[in-house]
Order: sequence, then structure tokens, then C-alpha cells
Amino acid sequence: MVDLTELMENEVFMAFTSYTTIILSKMMLMSTATAFYRLTRKVFANPEDCAGFGKGENAKKYLRTDDRVERVRRAHLNDLENIVPFLGIGLLYSLSGPDLSTAILHFRLFVGARIYHTIAYLTPLPQPNRALAFFVGYGVTFSMAYRLLKSRLY
Amino acid sequence: MVDLTELMENEVFMAFTSYTTIILSKMMLMSTATAFYRLTRKVFANPEDCAGFGKGENAKKYLRTDDRVERVRRAHLNDLENIVPFLGIGLLYSLSGPDLSTAILHFRLFVGARIYHTIAYLTPLPQPNRALAFFVGYGVTFSMAYRLLKSRLY
Amino acid sequence: MVDLTELMENEVFMAFTSYTTIILSKMMLMSTATAFYRLTRKVFANPEDCAGFGKGENAKKYLRTDDRVERVRRAHLNDLENIVPFLGIGLLYSLSGPDLSTAILHFRLFVGARIYHTIAYLTPLPQPNRALAFFVGYGVTFSMAYRLLKSRLY
Repeated sequence: MVDLTELMENEVFMAFTSYTTIILSKMMLMSTATAFYRLTRKVFANPEDCAGFGKGENAKKYLRTDDRVERVRRAHLNDLENIVPFLGIGLLYSLSGPDLSTAILHFRLFVGARIYHTIAYLTPLPQPNRALAFFVGYGVTFSMAYRLLKSRLY
Repeated sequence: MVDLTELMENEVFMAFTSYTTIILSKMMLMSTATAFYRLTRKVFANPEDCAGFGKGENAKKYLRTDDRVERVRRAHLNDLENIVPFLGIGLLYSLSGPDLSTAILHFRLFVGARIYHTIAYLTPLPQPNRALAFFVGYGVTFSMAYRLLKSRLY
Repeated sequence: MVDLTELMENEVFMAFTSYTTIILSKMMLMSTATAFYRLTRKVFANPEDCAGFGKGENAKKYLRTDDRVERVRRAHLNDLENIVPFLGIGLLYSLSGPDLSTAILHFRLFVGARIYHTIAYLTPLPQPNRALAFFVGYGVTFSMAYRLLKSRLY
């Protein structure tokens, strides 16, 4: 059996592991935020979810959309759209032997930008706070993709 | 060239491979379920999709939303939101050298919970069936993330 | 420390890296396409995004949905739903030691099909252009999943 601890002794890969775990955990908290707003504001998407609040017509009034809930859901979807490319490109980039400090700079910028993006989206902060956070994360991912394609194109 | 069969001889990684392939295949079947309901209920999102059912104004009546189709789409999006973190965190967790039986317990619980979540969402079963299935999968992913961060934080 | 360049000398893995980076970069461009249509058509989802166009009631008229923007968003979500399984299954497939030419055929077909899918969705081309592109990508992913499960089921 291969000694996988070898892979985990690679410092770039270890850094990637830590930052990816942090940003994926943050993304999962968006589900909790959605559930929190749905329950406190009594806004549901499925009839079975609000069955406890009343029967028949009385329950139907909870099947609506709410600005606050939709905002969290858009932030969550935006996370998905940006963290999935980071996950794929970042993993391959980590395995391509980049310079340690450059790699860590990429990971830190991405994680910081996405956390700031969520804060800017949920507060909400005036633009261009959210747009800037988005473009920093976007740029970091493209920078890693550029390095991969420049050196590895098959 | 490195002998990659070594990686595939690692039992935790092999188990991760099997369970991930199963749960990603299940997620892909949600696309088929959406297509099935769209075709049998004649509910479409794009004008070009229902061009075969009639011309002009006659076709526009098929551009609508339907409870059943929206339910499948919500289940699919919920799958995405939960399987993406499992994919990233689970891969890194598999490479971090966990105990085989603990790892398999995590993978089996997650796959079982997500399959039950889909059944509970599409039937639909009364709450808290779906909520419990969601939280089991959620807890499993956080448990793996916790182990990673505890031992690997850079 | 393990010499990770060994992994990058594996030709199947190098091919997977290149094609994955290409298709994830393409998916990220969908965000830019959404932003482009939102700005040129002045269609926004958040009040803070159109604050520059006017105050109070004047700004609210920009908070609407638009066919063109919704079309790009559906194409983006469809990308996510199909590229996430490709990312997970394709990575594990690349590590399972497949035949090089078979693997490259899979990757090329998938990348080509998804690019054609986006063209067919955004133009829009009449059906079944988009449906065929979808099923080619879908079939490629299932073909890789089948090979994994046949040989690796734990």
C-alpha cells in the first residue's frame, strides 16, 4: 500500500487542504442561514415543511418567497458557482508543484474574498464591495488556471 | 511514470471512489427526473423546447412552472449544495490516512442519507424525514472537516 | 517530501488536468455573461446593484427578471449540474489507470459537448441540438462511472 502520508507532507497540498476545508465549511453554513430565515420568517417552499403551522388553506399562506431568504439563496448559489472551479483548478494546481508562498497567497486571497463576498451580500454593503470581492476570487481562480494551462496543456 | 495503481490499492481511497461514484450518479439521475416531468407534464422553460407542440401563441402556454418540476429542481440543487462539500472534503479526508472502518462509516452514512433525502423530497414524506436526512449528511461532512482541520491546519 | 511531479508525468492525469481546467474556465465565463446582460439590459436582483441608476422608487423598476438573463442563468446551472459529476468521477477515473486514448476520447467528447451545449443554449439553436449535446456529456460521465464501479466496487 502506498504511504499516503507522503502526499500530506507536501506543504502546498496541506495548505490547499486547510483552506478548502474552511471555504467549503463556510459554504455549508449558507444552508443553515437559509433554514434560519425560513423558520424565523415562516417562508417555505414545500407544503410539508409548514404542515406544523396549520392545516389546509391556513398553511398555504406560508408558501411564498421572501427577499431575505432569496438573498441568502443567491449568495449560496454564487458560492457554488465560484467554489466549484476553485476546488477543481486549485486541486490540480496544488499537484502541479507551484511555489509554496505563491500558492498560499492564492488560497488566502480566495478564501478572504469569498468570506467578504458573503458578508457584503448578506449585510448588504453598498456596491462595489460585493463586485470587488467577486472579482478577486474570480481572478485568483483564473490565475491558477492560466498557470496550469501554460505549463501542462496536453 | 508513477505507478498509480498504488493509490488505487489504498482501501480508504477505493471506498471513497465507490461511494462518490454512486452518489454522483444518483445526482445525475435528477436531470433525467426533471426531463421526465417536463415532458410528461408539458412544462418547459425555453420556447425552443416546446416548438414541436405548436406554433406561436399555441406554444407559449407550455412556458410555465409546475409544482412537481420545481420540487425535483429544488431536490437537485440541494444535492449539489451538499455533494460538492462532500466531494472536496471527502477526497482530502481520504488522503489524510483515516481509520478504514471510520471512513467507510462516514461514506455509507452520507450516501444513505442523501438517497433517503431524495426519496423524502420526491414522495414527499412528511417532515421531519427530509430534515433528518439532510442533517445526517451535513453532520457527516462536518465531522470529516473537523478531523481535517484538527490535524492539518496549516 | 513526495515528488509530486511524478503524478504530473502521468499522461492521463495531465490530459484530465488540461481538459478540466478548460471546461471550468468556460463555466466561469458564464458569470461574466450574466453580468454583461444584467448591465446592458439593466436587470438586477439586488437593490444595492442598481443604486447608481436612481434613488428610491426610480431604482425599483430595475429589479425584475429578463428572458435573456434567465437563459444564461439556466445554462450556468446546467453546467454546474453536469460539470460537478465530471470533476469527481473524471478525477477518480484518471487515477484508476485507464487506457490513455480511451481517456482522452472521454475528456474531449465531454468538453466538446458542453461547449456546444452552451452555444446551443445561448444562441438559441432549435432542439434537439441542446438535448443531444446534453446527452453526449451525460453519457460520457456515466461511461466513466460504469468503468469505475465495475472494477473498483468496494
